[in-house]
Amino acid sequence: MDLITLITDFGTRDWFVGTMKAVMLKINPRATVIDITNEIPPGDISAGAFALAASYKFAPKGTVHVVVVDPGVGSARGAIAVETGDYFFVGPDNGVLSWALRREKIRTMRLIKNERFRLKPLSRTFHGRDIFAPVAAHLSKGLQIRMLGPELTEIVKLPWPEPAKRKNVIKGEIVYIDRFGNAITNIAETDVVPSESARAQVQIGRKLRCALAEFYGSVKAGQPVAVFGSSGLLEIAVNRDSAAKQFGLRVGQKVIFTLG
Amino acid sequence: MDLITLITDFGTRDWFVGTMKAVMLKINPRATVIDITNEIPPGDISAGAFALAASYKFAPKGTVHVVVVDPGVGSARGAIAVETGDYFFVGPDNGVLSWALRREKIRTMRLIKNERFRLKPLSRTFHGRDIFAPVAAHLSKGLQIRMLGPELTEIVKLPWPEPAKRKNVIKGEIVYIDRFGNAITNIAETDVVPSESARAQVQIGRKLRCALAEFYGSVKAGQPVAVFGSSGLLEIAVNRDSAAKQFGLRVGQKVIFTLG
Amino acid sequence: MDLITLITDFGTRDWFVGTMKAVMLKINPRATVIDITNEIPPGDISAGAFALAASYKFAPKGTVHVVVVDPGVGSARGAIAVETGDYFFVGPDNGVLSWALRREKIRTMRLIKNERFRLKPLSRTFHGRDIFAPVAAHLSKGLQIRMLGPELTEIVKLPWPEPAKRKNVIKGEIVYIDRFGNAITNIAETDVVPSESARAQVQIGRKLRCALAEFYGSVKAGQPVAVFGSSGLLEIAVNRDSAAKQFGLRVGQKVIFTLG
Repeated sequence: MDLITLITDFGTRDWFVGTMKAVMLKINPRATVIDITNEIPPGDISAGAFALAASYKFAPKGTVHVVVVDPGVGSARGAIAVETGDYFFVGPDNGVLSWALRREKIRTMRLIKNERFRLKPLSRTFHGRDIFAPVAAHLSKGLQIRMLGPELTEIVKLPWPEPAKRKNVIKGEIVYIDRFGNAITNIAETDVVPSESARAQVQIGRKLRCALAEFYGSVKAGQPVAVFGSSGLLEIAVNRDSAAKQFGLRVGQKVIFTLG
Repeated sequence: MDLITLITDFGTRDWFVGTMKAVMLKINPRATVIDITNEIPPGDISAGAFALAASYKFAPKGTVHVVVVDPGVGSARGAIAVETGDYFFVGPDNGVLSWALRREKIRTMRLIKNERFRLKPLSRTFHGRDIFAPVAAHLSKGLQIRMLGPELTEIVKLPWPEPAKRKNVIKGEIVYIDRFGNAITNIAETDVVPSESARAQVQIGRKLRCALAEFYGSVKAGQPVAVFGSSGLLEIAVNRDSAAKQFGLRVGQKVIFTLG
Repeated sequence: MDLITLITDFGTRDWFVGTMKAVMLKINPRATVIDITNEIPPGDISAGAFALAASYKFAPKGTVHVVVVDPGVGSARGAIAVETGDYFFVGPDNGVLSWALRREKIRTMRLIKNERFRLKPLSRTFHGRDIFAPVAAHLSKGLQIRMLGPELTEIVKLPWPEPAKRKNVIKGEIVYIDRFGNAITNIAETDVVPSESARAQVQIGRKLRCALAEFYGSVKAGQPVAVFGSSGLLEIAVNRDSAAKQFGLRVGQKVIFTLG
C-alpha cells in the first residue's frame, strides 16, 4: 500500500492541508494520506519532532512520513528526504525529523534538489504544496530516493534533553503537553527498573507532588498522578481534568522523579 | 468495502487519532477510515453517544463504528464489540454505544479479551491505539466477532431522557448543542402528528419563546426559531447566530413544547 | 480515480462532515474524499469562495469539488452543479462557487432537481448530507450531469473586488486572513511587471508600512513584510508572528501598493 502520513502546523482553517492532499493524489491516485496532526503550533519545530517520534513506528513498513513545520520556508534551509530500514521521511532540514531518526537505521539522506519532482511555478511560501507533497507522492509510488538529489552526511539535529539519573533520583523535564493537559516528560519507562517503580514520586515546582500509578483513574477525580504513558514516557496527569491548567505546567519545566 | 468510522475525544492537536489510523491501515491496508468527529469534549460520554446515534445509520452495511470516549481507560471497565443486523460497534463498555444500540437489532455482544487482536506492549492510557483500532481493523477485514471474547448479556446503558407528553404539551430537554449554537432536544418529530405542528410553540426558561417553523430562515436574522432538524429531533436555533450564546442554553435545560 | 473535495462551514466538532462522507461512500465505495477545510466561519460565503478558488486547480482532472456554506439552507435558494473543462462543482447557488468559476471554461450549469439523487426523507436543515453529498458521489461515479436537472444560464455571482492601478500605485484590499495571521489581498502578481517589484512598498492604514520581499524570513522576527504568496496574491505577513493580530488587520481593509 502507498501510505503517506502528514504532520504540519498549517491548521485546518485554511485550504493548505487539503491542497497538499490534492497534489499528492494527482501524482499518485493510489496513495492513502492520513493526518497525524495539522495543529502543531505555528513554527514549533520541537512539537512537530515530538509528534513524529511518538507516532511514526505504528505505520506499516514503506510509509512515507511528511512533516512540514517550516518557519524558514523560502530561505536557505534545505529540504530533505531520508530513507531508513522501514520508512521514508520528508521535510525541511531544521531538525523536525531528527528525534524520530535518532532511533532509526538510516540508509540514505538526500537533499531535495531535482526540479522534476516539484510543482512549477514554485511559490516562496508554500513548499508543503510545491515540494514536500510532490516528493512524498513520488516516493510513495516507488521513486528511488537517490533521484531527488545529492547525498547528505549531516542534517540539522534538535538536541534531545537527556534526563540525568543519580542514585534514586532522575531529573528530567516536560517535553510536550497534550490536548488533555497531560504533561509528557523526557523520562522513559526504560530508564527505570520495575522494582524502583513502587512508591516512586514525582515533584514539579513547589506545588505538584504525586505518586507513580498504573493509570489515570488510580487517584480521585481532580487529583494529580504520574503514569508511564502510551509513548513510554513518564507523564503527569490530573484524573478527569487538565494537569497543565491546574498546576500551570509548561514545556521545559524541571521534573524530579524519586524512585522507591 | 472496508469502512471504519471514528468518534473520539482525542482532539486533532496531538498524534492520537492519526496513530489509530496508522494501526488500522497496517492491519487492513484496504480499510477506509473516516472521522465522524474527534472533538467530543474530553470524557463526555453522552456527547459521544449522541454523535454516534445521529450519524451511524448513514454508513453502508458492514461498517465498523468505533467510539473512544474513555475516561476510565486502564481501569476495570470492559472493552466491547457488538454486531447488529447492519453494523459493528467497538468501544469501551461505559454506555457510549448504547444510544445507537437502542435502535439496532443486536446479534451478539462480546467482551474484548483475546490478546491476539491487540498491540503489544499494551499501554495503560491509550487503548484507542492498542485495543480499539486493531479490533476494528480486524473486524473490517472479516474477523468473526466471536473470536474477540466471551458473549455478554448486559452492557452499560446511558439513560435516554424520554420526553413526557400530556395533552398538548411535551416536556423535554436539551441533549446536545452543536457548533452553530443550535440546541438539539430529545423531542422527536415522530412524537408529534403533523396537524399538531401548526402554531406549535417552544419555551425554554423565561426568556426564550419561539414558534415551530420549516427552516432557520423562516425568521429574521437574530430571531429564535424551532425546527425539526436533520436528526429528526426538535432543535432551537437563532437565524444566522448562536441560540446557545444568545440565550445561554446548555445541555439538560428543560424545554416546553406546546402543540397547536 | 473518483476524487471528491470538501469545503464546508460545518466545523469538526459535530458529526456533520463525517456523515456526508459516509453518505458519499455508501453511494460510491471507490470514492476518495479529502477535506479542503471545514472551518469556514459559519455562513461566510466569501471565505468559502476564496478557499475554493485558492485550492481547486491542484486537484486532478475529473475531481468533484463540493462547497457547503449555505446559510439559506431550506429556503428558496437553488442547489447547483457545474461542469467545466476539468472539474465538477457542487453547492448552493449563493455565489460560493463563483470565484473559482470565473477562471474556468464552463460546459454546463444545472439546477439540482432530480429527486432520485438525494436522500429521503429530505431534511430541511442539512442539505450537505441529503443533497450535496449524494449528488457529488453520483457525479464521481460517472453520472451525466444533465440527469440532475434543467440547464441554467445564470447563477448567483459574488463580486470580486478588482484592484485599481493608476500610474505606479495599486489600490486593493484584504480579501482573506489565514491561520498564521497573514493578510491576503486582491492584488495579483500578474498585475505587476517584475521591474516594478524592486523597492515596492505596501501601506495599510497609518501604522503598517513594509517592503515587498521574496519570503517571510527576509525581515527580522516580529517585523512586517509583503510577499507574493502561494495563491499568486500579495500578502502581508509578520515574520514568525501574526500580522492580523499585531496590526489589527481585517477583511475589506484598503491596501496601497506603491511600485518601485
